[in-house]
Amino acid sequence: MPAIDGDRLLRDLYAARDIGRYKTGVHRPTFSPEDVQARHWLAGRMTEAGLDSSIDGIGNVYGRDPRPGRKLLMGSHMETQNHAGWLDGVMGVIYGLEVARTLGRGIDVATWADEEGHFGSFPGSRSFCGLLTEQEIDVCGNRETGVSLRDALRQAGFSGRPRQKIDTARYRGYLEAHIEQGADLEDHHLRLGIVTAIVGSRRFRIQFKGQQNHAGTTRMSVRKDAGVALVKLVAAIEDRFPKIAGPRTVWTTGDIKLEPGAASIVPGGAELVFQFRDTEQATLEALDATLTELVAEAAKGPCEVSIVYRSATDPSIMDPGFRSALQAAAQTHAPGLSQPMPSGAGHDAQILAQVLPSAMLFVPSIGGISHHYTENTRDEDIVLGCQVFADAAAAILAKA
Amino acid sequence: MPAIDGDRLLRDLYAARDIGRYKTGVHRPTFSPEDVQARHWLAGRMTEAGLDSSIDGIGNVYGRDPRPGRKLLMGSHMETQNHAGWLDGVMGVIYGLEVARTLGRGIDVATWADEEGHFGSFPGSRSFCGLLTEQEIDVCGNRETGVSLRDALRQAGFSGRPRQKIDTARYRGYLEAHIEQGADLEDHHLRLGIVTAIVGSRRFRIQFKGQQNHAGTTRMSVRKDAGVALVKLVAAIEDRFPKIAGPRTVWTTGDIKLEPGAASIVPGGAELVFQFRDTEQATLEALDATLTELVAEAAKGPCEVSIVYRSATDPSIMDPGFRSALQAAAQTHAPGLSQPMPSGAGHDAQILAQVLPSAMLFVPSIGGISHHYTENTRDEDIVLGCQVFADAAAAILAKA
Repeated sequence: MPAIDGDRLLRDLYAARDIGRYKTGVHRPTFSPEDVQARHWLAGRMTEAGLDSSIDGIGNVYGRDPRPGRKLLMGSHMETQNHAGWLDGVMGVIYGLEVARTLGRGIDVATWADEEGHFGSFPGSRSFCGLLTEQEIDVCGNRETGVSLRDALRQAGFSGRPRQKIDTARYRGYLEAHIEQGADLEDHHLRLGIVTAIVGSRRFRIQFKGQQNHAGTTRMSVRKDAGVALVKLVAAIEDRFPKIAGPRTVWTTGDIKLEPGAASIVPGGAELVFQFRDTEQATLEALDATLTELVAEAAKGPCEVSIVYRSATDPSIMDPGFRSALQAAAQTHAPGLSQPMPSGAGHDAQILAQVLPSAMLFVPSIGGISHHYTENTRDEDIVLGCQVFADAAAAILAKA
Repeated sequence: MPAIDGDRLLRDLYAARDIGRYKTGVHRPTFSPEDVQARHWLAGRMTEAGLDSSIDGIGNVYGRDPRPGRKLLMGSHMETQNHAGWLDGVMGVIYGLEVARTLGRGIDVATWADEEGHFGSFPGSRSFCGLLTEQEIDVCGNRETGVSLRDALRQAGFSGRPRQKIDTARYRGYLEAHIEQGADLEDHHLRLGIVTAIVGSRRFRIQFKGQQNHAGTTRMSVRKDAGVALVKLVAAIEDRFPKIAGPRTVWTTGDIKLEPGAASIVPGGAELVFQFRDTEQATLEALDATLTELVAEAAKGPCEVSIVYRSATDPSIMDPGFRSALQAAAQTHAPGLSQPMPSGAGHDAQILAQVLPSAMLFVPSIGGISHHYTENTRDEDIVLGCQVFADAAAAILAKA
C-alpha cells in the first residue's frame, strides 16, 4: 500500500490553522472572511494536487479527479464553531487531499459548507445530495447575527453560482475522517475508532405555563409555579430514562429558563431544551414514548405543559464493507488499538449515507475536548489515521 | 370617633396616580423625575394639612405636627416597581395624611425612600432609624442602570441635606397601611387584615460546578452535569420542605440559569436563586438546617455545590396593643370582615418595629394582583381601611 506523506499532511493542517487562528485554535465561522479565505486556499491546494477545483453556489468546495473511472468521495467541513479547535472538520478534508495525492487517482475531495450549523442544518452536504430547497435557503439566517444565508453567500462571492448535485453513478461511496470529540478512545488507550453508526436524535423545547405571583404573599397551596413543574419533569426524566436507555444512550437538558426569573416572583413561565441520542431506532422510539408519558403526567399538575418544538433524525448505519476495509487497515498499522464505536455527534456522513455507502474513521481527542481552542490530537495519531484512511480507500477502490 | 373624608382621600390618590401614570397603573421608580415630582407634591399637601414638611438627604419626606405632645408616626413609600400599580405604597402615605387632617393633631406622616429596592434595602426607613451608614450609601447603585445612589440623590436635588434621625421619645409608635398584595382576604370574602407579624426570610444563591461537555459524545457515566445536579436539589427541596414547613411558610426558586445553556452542550455550571419566608424564627431555622443538609447531600454527587450568597431577616412581631386597637376599629366598621394575618411581603414597618411599637393594616388586592399595572382595590375598601386606621390611631393616642 502506498505511504502517505505525514509531514505534508501536517504542514497543510498547520497552514489551515493560520487562517483565523485564535490562541491554539481557530475562529472561522461559516462565510466569515477567514472561512472564505480558507475555502479559496483549499481550492488552490486541490489544483496543485491535480484535481479540478471549484466552489459552488452553497459554498461547497470540490476537488474532482479528472481521470476516468468510479471514484471514492472524501470530505468533511472547514468552518469552525466560535473560538474552537484547529482539527474539527478540516482534518477530514486534508485527509482526503492527502489520500488523493498519495493514491494519484480515484479520489474526489469535498468541503461541505456549514456543518457547524451557523446558518442551517447541514446545508452543504444536503445541497449536494439534493435535499436542500431554494425555499429553505431563503429562510436560513445566522443564529447569532441574524444575517440571511443569501446575504452571507453574496458577501462571500458565491451567490449566482449553480449548486452542484451528486452523480451517484460516479461514486463507489463516501468516507469521512474526524476527531472523536469524546474521550472514549483515550480512556481505553486506543488510537482509532471505526464508526458503526451515527446516532439519531430527538430534540424538544418544552414549555410550562403557570401563574406569576408574589413570592411572599402567595400561599404554596394556590401556586401554579412553572419552575417547580419543570424541575419535577426533569427529575422524572432522570429517574425513568436510565431504565429504558441502551448502553450508549445519552440525554441532555441543555438549557432552562424561568420567566420572569426574579428572586421574589413565583415563575409564571418556564422552558427547557431537551434532547436524546442513540444508534438504535427502537431505543429512540421507547424514549420518545416515555417522554410523552412523563409530559402527560406533568400536565396533570397545576401548570399547562406543551412540547413546542420537536425534531427527529434517524440513526445512520455505516456501510459494513467500508467498515471492514477500515478495520483491516487499522489492524495492519495499529494492531489491537482500534474499536468499533458509535458517533454521538452528527456529521455530514449521515447526510451522504442517505445516497451513498458511507463510513467514518475517528482519531482520539486529547482529554476528549472539542469545540474549544484547546482541542488537540497527537501528531502521530493524525498521521496514523490518514495512513489507515489511505489504505482503506485503496482497498475499496481495488474492489470497485 | 371623627369621620375621614373619603372623597378627599380618593382625590389625593387619583392625583398621585397622575404622576408617572402608566396605563391603569404607575411607573415611578425611585428618584426618577416623576418620583421626585411626587415627593414635592406630597410635601405641598402636608403643608396644606398644617404639617411642617421637609425632604431630607436620603429623600424621605416628613410632615410633622408642630403642636406639642407625643405623636403617632404613619407612613409608607411613594416610589413604585417598574410599570406597577397605583396603590402599592402611596396608599399608606395618603392614609397618614388623611388621618392627620381628620384628627387635627398627634400625627406625623412620613414617606420612606426606596422601599421598592431600586437602589438598596429599605434605605429610607433604615436611615431614619439610624441603621444606614454613609459607607453603605457610597456603594449603593441602581439595580438596572447602575447609577450610584449618590448621583441619583444629587440629580434629585436632595444631596447635601442632613438625614433626619428618629427621636424615639417623640413617638408613641408607628402605623402603616398597605394593600395586601395577595388574595387571602378576597378568597375569604374579608375586607381588612390585621398584620400579626412580617415574615422573616432567608435568601440564597446556590452554584453548581460540573464539567462542560459535548452532549452527543459524552457518556452518561462520566458526566458532571451541573444542570442535573441543580434539578435534583430543587426536587429534594420540594420533597422535604412541606414536611417541615408551617401553615404559612412559602419557598420559591425564583431563577435558574445553566451555563452555557445550549441544546447540545452538557452544562458545566448552574445557578439557582432560592428563598423562604415565615413568621416563626424556629421554622426559619429548621428550614435553614434542612437546606444545609440537602446541599451537603448534593455535594456527594459529581458536581461541586456552594452557597455563594445568603442573607437573613428575622420576623417582625407587630405590637399587640396596636393590633387590638386596629381589631376593635375593624370590628366597629366591618363586623366579622377582618382577620389577623401575617405579611408575606417586606415593608418599612419591619424596620420601624426595631425602634418603635409598630403595626400594619391590610386592605384587599383585587385578584391578589400586585407589581403590575392592573393592581387595584375597590374604592369602598380603600375608604373603609382609612376610617379603621383613623379610629385605631385616635384610640392609641387617647391612651398615650
